[in-house]
Amino acid sequence: MNDDGIDEVRRLLVSKPRPTTLAERRQRLDEIGSAFGVAGDIRFEPTRIGGVEAEWSTTPGSDDSRVLVFFHGGGYASGSIHSHRGMAAEAGRAAGIRAVAVGYRLAPENPYPAALQDARAVYDALLASGLPATRIAIGGDSAGGNLSLALMLSLRDAGKPLPACAWLVSPWTDLQMTGGSLATKASVDPIISKTYLQELAASFLGDADAGSPLISPIHADLAGLPPLLVQVGSAETLLDDAIRIAARAASADVRVTLEVWPHMIHAWPLWSARVPAGRAALKSAGAFIRAHVSS
Amino acid sequence: MNDDGIDEVRRLLVSKPRPTTLAERRQRLDEIGSAFGVAGDIRFEPTRIGGVEAEWSTTPGSDDSRVLVFFHGGGYASGSIHSHRGMAAEAGRAAGIRAVAVGYRLAPENPYPAALQDARAVYDALLASGLPATRIAIGGDSAGGNLSLALMLSLRDAGKPLPACAWLVSPWTDLQMTGGSLATKASVDPIISKTYLQELAASFLGDADAGSPLISPIHADLAGLPPLLVQVGSAETLLDDAIRIAARAASADVRVTLEVWPHMIHAWPLWSARVPAGRAALKSAGAFIRAHVSS
Repeated sequence: MNDDGIDEVRRLLVSKPRPTTLAERRQRLDEIGSAFGVAGDIRFEPTRIGGVEAEWSTTPGSDDSRVLVFFHGGGYASGSIHSHRGMAAEAGRAAGIRAVAVGYRLAPENPYPAALQDARAVYDALLASGLPATRIAIGGDSAGGNLSLALMLSLRDAGKPLPACAWLVSPWTDLQMTGGSLATKASVDPIISKTYLQELAASFLGDADAGSPLISPIHADLAGLPPLLVQVGSAETLLDDAIRIAARAASADVRVTLEVWPHMIHAWPLWSARVPAGRAALKSAGAFIRAHVSS
Repeated sequence: MNDDGIDEVRRLLVSKPRPTTLAERRQRLDEIGSAFGVAGDIRFEPTRIGGVEAEWSTTPGSDDSRVLVFFHGGGYASGSIHSHRGMAAEAGRAAGIRAVAVGYRLAPENPYPAALQDARAVYDALLASGLPATRIAIGGDSAGGNLSLALMLSLRDAGKPLPACAWLVSPWTDLQMTGGSLATKASVDPIISKTYLQELAASFLGDADAGSPLISPIHADLAGLPPLLVQVGSAETLLDDAIRIAARAASADVRVTLEVWPHMIHAWPLWSARVPAGRAALKSAGAFIRAHVSS
């Protein structure tokens, strides 16, 4: 095992043939995401919020009056509360607050805008429950980063209060797949290929336009968004998606921090139990969330 | 005065007509950079290192066995130890280490590579004095960020030990001036225009090629560089220079953090005495340097 732990994850990823059916794909992400287990001191509580399946997680000493709303990745077609349970909970621990993982509807059964509707339903229900937006952080990895951005744009355009901040890990921000790193990083990325993204995008889009701002936020006017932390690995085909959304936010006077983690692969904090740079990234995200979510 | 303090600086900048002669320009930056004074508890000590004019600064409790080597901005034609004295010292304070400001030779009297030779002379002399590279951070603003990058590339290519990390504020990384923000941010940037940069580049280049990697590091292979912190304001024509150097570093597996500070202008930590976001940026830089410079 390499010092950075990511080699063990790379071996895990290639230990089985790539799945072909949708059911296999979903099972695989659930298995791989949870391969290293979760800490024994996390308390999980299944729930429904705004009619959407969700799961609370709390860690010892966490402040329950502040909430991280977490949207898992999986290309809008896979991933679940189960696959990303550890990542959501450990991010909450790092921030010292409660986390709630959202089990939004997936494509192709439920294409755009089902996931966004579910994200809005959860957020609106939390506000309606009396939780101030200033005490809410949102975040997610990959498609969950895309969904976090879409949620904020939807809230802004509806005149609703925005969350205090957003944390985006390896966000998928361009569903037209024009980023240069799709080619330049293809040989080092064990998870995400352009072909795979094209398949996922087709499954998600239905009749929607891949270039619309709510789907490819690199084309959105991001003015008015709260502080963003964007984390990405340098061994990712989606590297340029992260850089370009940071650049787009910067141009719109949004406070944005972009962290590039050398040699890390797509959504590496998912395996923080074995990858020190995953834990370090979560620690940095925790500090960011603490700094922006009001107490 | 606006809450963010930058309006006072904007007023300061427009309070006098723009200088025309070189001597006026140098005097103006010395005056504007030092307009708000420096803290009374900083101890300054003029020196020469490797034959180059320099100035040590220490703050109460700073660790003198670790050093921030600071390169001031001013387009390679102006700026001095005097103009940036407070910025260098306060960055050292934030990092808890000594700072040394370098009075490298300026253009047009001394075009490229005079400044780089001076930077190398200082760095090499520090190493020769027994200071390990792991205890050295380097940094600078604007042209000083350019010089920091050139110094690291020069060291890497010579097989010399690199500093532990580098901190770049509003770095000028493209002396061919191809960044889109030169146009999109022109109306909000009170300091840096494309015309002004063209004039500065001509003065600095002499016979050198503006596109060469040591002059426009956005074209360099940055592989092997130590961790970089890039800080930039969103109200800067050089915004894209910062974003593109971060992207370039990311592609080469360099650990890089890009911080975009909304509404801040070029090299705003220069006025941290009056600008809270300047102090906050220095604090963040200090934490970054502490995390990477070995004790």
